[in-house]
Amino acid sequence: MAAPIDFYFDFSSPYGYIGSEVVDAFAARIGRDVAWRPVLLGPIFKHVGTAPLVDIPLKGDYAKRDFVRMARYYKVPFTLPVKFPVGTQAATRAFYCLSDADPALARRFAKQVFRAYYTDGIDISDPATVVELAAKVGADREKVAAAIADPAVKERVKNEVDAAIAKGVFGSPLFIVDGEMFWGVDRLPQLEEWVRTGGW
Amino acid sequence: MAAPIDFYFDFSSPYGYIGSEVVDAFAARIGRDVAWRPVLLGPIFKHVGTAPLVDIPLKGDYAKRDFVRMARYYKVPFTLPVKFPVGTQAATRAFYCLSDADPALARRFAKQVFRAYYTDGIDISDPATVVELAAKVGADREKVAAAIADPAVKERVKNEVDAAIAKGVFGSPLFIVDGEMFWGVDRLPQLEEWVRTGGW
Repeated sequence: MAAPIDFYFDFSSPYGYIGSEVVDAFAARIGRDVAWRPVLLGPIFKHVGTAPLVDIPLKGDYAKRDFVRMARYYKVPFTLPVKFPVGTQAATRAFYCLSDADPALARRFAKQVFRAYYTDGIDISDPATVVELAAKVGADREKVAAAIADPAVKERVKNEVDAAIAKGVFGSPLFIVDGEMFWGVDRLPQLEEWVRTGGW
Repeated sequence: MAAPIDFYFDFSSPYGYIGSEVVDAFAARIGRDVAWRPVLLGPIFKHVGTAPLVDIPLKGDYAKRDFVRMARYYKVPFTLPVKFPVGTQAATRAFYCLSDADPALARRFAKQVFRAYYTDGIDISDPATVVELAAKVGADREKVAAAIADPAVKERVKNEVDAAIAKGVFGSPLFIVDGEMFWGVDRLPQLEEWVRTGGW
């Protein structure tokens, strides 16, 4: 099988959530694996010099409408949480702690986190909540709790974010396949055509 | 025929250009007319608090790549002009001067301006150039030259931009159909589904 699709996302990103619900079936259909790579949009937006989408005049109002419309278009259940956006450091640390030992478990955890936030409105910024969500998909509760508080894991996440920025990652979801970058779920048809034709 | 699709764009917007090349055939297919509505992204971006896309770190680099890739995907000839972006006051004034008397002529003019800029790299910020492009599609040279310099037409354009902002327009291209807003050529499939189903 050819190289995986790198799938960059932030756990607080609505479009990242929609991406998380569609990317595996999409990738399987075009014969690729997916490397899930959560990042933190906070430091990325700081680097880029932009604000959270919903804070931007006019564009923010549109975005709130587009989140809902887009989710329904892709048949993904979605409710914008009252507390939005939220910090995703705990979830991201837990993810990398899990993914080193068991990528499939980490992926199940990621989907669980996204669904908890976007279908049940659960506050995923809370470390204790993140531990519960990890336990639900079969992860070791103590190990995840320790990882969230571990300075080495914090550093690991920082390095992942820095590496993503170095690759040009500026938003969520962002896909890289065969060195080519595609931003947004709406670019998946072009990504598919790119892989099918070898680019243009 | 049902109400037209409002098509907002700036003559300096690459995605607006791609939109201009595909919107008429698209709208005809779904049984709608198109009301072409050039605006000025300068005052709009000031209102929104954003910068021209290519000036944004990382995102700007991606955008330059995406312009080209997107144009090829839609089979639209495209070369990013050396001087980019440019002011589009003259072209926008000329457009509204023409559209009041002859909307079809104004639309031909708009396509001519976009193609001059994005296929031949012609500087469309220059009023004399705009007059030449208008003459090429059959407009009265003197009338267009006078309109570009006319404070009343300048005011008219300002009012069009203010009205667009009041409707929530924040980018280019932006389509409004039956009161529903869709930003970007990449949202046309959803716009089509929206019209076909009556919304969701």
